Amino acid sequence: MTDDLPNPALLPAGLADLLPPEAEREAALVEAMMGVFAAHGYERVKPPLLEFEDSLLAGSGAAVAEQTFRLMDPVSQRMMGLRADTTPQVARIAATRLGAQARPLRLCYAGQVLRVRGTQLAPSRQLPQAGVELIGGAAPAADAEVAVVAIEALAAIGVTQISLDVTMPTMVPALMDAAGLDAPLRSSLARALDRKDSAAVTTLVHGQAGALAALPGLMAATGPAEGALAALDAAELPPAARAIAQNAAEVLAAIQARAPGLRITLDPVEFRGFRYHTGVAFTLYGPGMSGELARGGRYVSQNDEPATGMTLYPDAVLSAAPASAPMRRLFLPIGADGAAFRAEGFATVAALAGEDTPQRLRCTHELKDGRPVPILTKD
Amino acid sequence: MTDDLPNPALLPAGLADLLPPEAEREAALVEAMMGVFAAHGYERVKPPLLEFEDSLLAGSGAAVAEQTFRLMDPVSQRMMGLRADTTPQVARIAATRLGAQARPLRLCYAGQVLRVRGTQLAPSRQLPQAGVELIGGAAPAADAEVAVVAIEALAAIGVTQISLDVTMPTMVPALMDAAGLDAPLRSSLARALDRKDSAAVTTLVHGQAGALAALPGLMAATGPAEGALAALDAAELPPAARAIAQNAAEVLAAIQARAPGLRITLDPVEFRGFRYHTGVAFTLYGPGMSGELARGGRYVSQNDEPATGMTLYPDAVLSAAPASAPMRRLFLPIGADGAAFRAEGFATVAALAGEDTPQRLRCTHELKDGRPVPILTKD
Repeated sequence: MTDDLPNPALLPAGLADLLPPEAEREAALVEAMMGVFAAHGYERVKPPLLEFEDSLLAGSGAAVAEQTFRLMDPVSQRMMGLRADTTPQVARIAATRLGAQARPLRLCYAGQVLRVRGTQLAPSRQLPQAGVELIGGAAPAADAEVAVVAIEALAAIGVTQISLDVTMPTMVPALMDAAGLDAPLRSSLARALDRKDSAAVTTLVHGQAGALAALPGLMAATGPAEGALAALDAAELPPAARAIAQNAAEVLAAIQARAPGLRITLDPVEFRGFRYHTGVAFTLYGPGMSGELARGGRYVSQNDEPATGMTLYPDAVLSAAPASAPMRRLFLPIGADGAAFRAEGFATVAALAGEDTPQRLRCTHELKDGRPVPILTKD
Repeated sequence: MTDDLPNPALLPAGLADLLPPEAEREAALVEAMMGVFAAHGYERVKPPLLEFEDSLLAGSGAAVAEQTFRLMDPVSQRMMGLRADTTPQVARIAATRLGAQARPLRLCYAGQVLRVRGTQLAPSRQLPQAGVELIGGAAPAADAEVAVVAIEALAAIGVTQISLDVTMPTMVPALMDAAGLDAPLRSSLARALDRKDSAAVTTLVHGQAGALAALPGLMAATGPAEGALAALDAAELPPAARAIAQNAAEVLAAIQARAPGLRITLDPVEFRGFRYHTGVAFTLYGPGMSGELARGGRYVSQNDEPATGMTLYPDAVLSAAPASAPMRRLFLPIGADGAAFRAEGFATVAALAGEDTPQRLRCTHELKDGRPVPILTKD
């Protein structure tokens, strides 16, 4: 119901109204997910929509700099940005207002972000976000916790059959570094990996230092976590890459201990699209074609603190979640008192004038002998 | 907890972080109020934060035009505004996307608005709003319903001892029109009324046409609704003013029938600050010095539809509402499962590393023999 059929020029491209009943559903599922975060000790913060661009675009915020709307602040005469991501704001809060609080700090948030341009696949320029950040904890158990909490939040609203895709965005750069690759070859190899072109990768690494020899094998091992982990384990890796693999194995073991039935895939050579991740990165997919429901992973927060987090996309979650039953609408004749029926879960819709009929007010129930009865509609 | 003590320059003036536990409290009370709106048949809509300025500033939006941030849309090359009020957007939705739906239409919303400048009394430039709009109903019962629903929403979150201030912003202009007052005298009289300067008002109306003779008496009658209504009833009023008084009397009777104990004051001559209201206007005050909690009243929506609504200010409501008990935080040793305790309402806070103690994680409870027990702190 986010189409703009009556007049497509009414709203700017990528900005839409959410109508009944979707607006209510989205709000309800956001609050249900936030309830799960709170139950795991994540405390809510609400940063403002606008702040100075130099603080908004610092650290991980740089990744969305070109997607950020800018405004001049007439009060300070400084440039402000309209947030395009919430994680950098939470990092700022953790480093400043909550800088003195003991670590790890568990924070959560829900709100809107705005983007200068949409993409063909994701045309929306206003996106809801709800997420968790765990700041000041370096243990693999911290990464596992944020992934599992996100999955539990989705389960709480009926989204099951989730699959978790784990990547190690630092693995390919570590192998390239160990091989001492020059810049042109780095970018050729990056493009070939991005295209999943294993023939090109094999050709490019042929004759290069041994650090890269593992690449074609790792590429082929992408898939269910167990096979990919076994391939990583068997591969000859330089020390930095071995440490990355070891960390990923520990994170995966911690996730599997907490969520035994979860479907997990591992792509050891994926490294695009995770512009500030420094350890494992996560993407959660819903059932069928419902697409990405959440993204996250490990990063370095302000003041060089280790951090990990997950951002859920409530607009995508809304499509993946089962529809909830609409509220029963009970027609109240002029002057009738509806308090008792509201307490039973009815929406009472009061007639205010003679022309207000149950049909006009789209009621599902009316009062007969003082009790709500369903209104029978002719087929 | 919205002060910026560590570094006042960190955020622009009037923009603040809401920290734990306030951010959680605000979200909870907004959703509780929205639940009351839904129970009265108000269906939620979620307009975007940005839209073209010509639609955003149409109709009642003109009242906040100078308070609206503007942005160039790089996609359409047209100017967009960042909403400074939600009512005009709901009016747009009612007239377009929901234009074909039978009236009256009951809609509700919750979200943020942004203002170019704060005032000395209200320095915030980002304000949460939550409200109801009833579009396409002209009956006094509609005005009464929005006022009573807002009061019920406040009661649901523990804000009682509300007083409702009712004004008739069209009364003074109607009296001036009937007296055929010239522009300089109109503005002198408006200033005197604004200052509540009854001596000046008496002097100014002396010798003017009879329509204005009632003004000093109406001014003196401002106060509890019954006295003010009696004074209105006794006053000699020209027909347009009499109709306004009659409508106000009907709205007040409908409110009193629905909320018998409510404290209501009536100011028949107040007319500033209600820039688009065409009938009764409402202000809700909380107990003590908690200030304005909500504003609303009757207006003309798009396509000349009669409409009435109320906007609640969750930031003010947050100050007026009683504090809720913070969540109990249960320390979970490494590897312990907390699902059963979360189901009991605990926030479980998991140790992820050896240094994570109950004290560091600010826990109130720990497990003893598998059961949560309060952690005793030394005084």
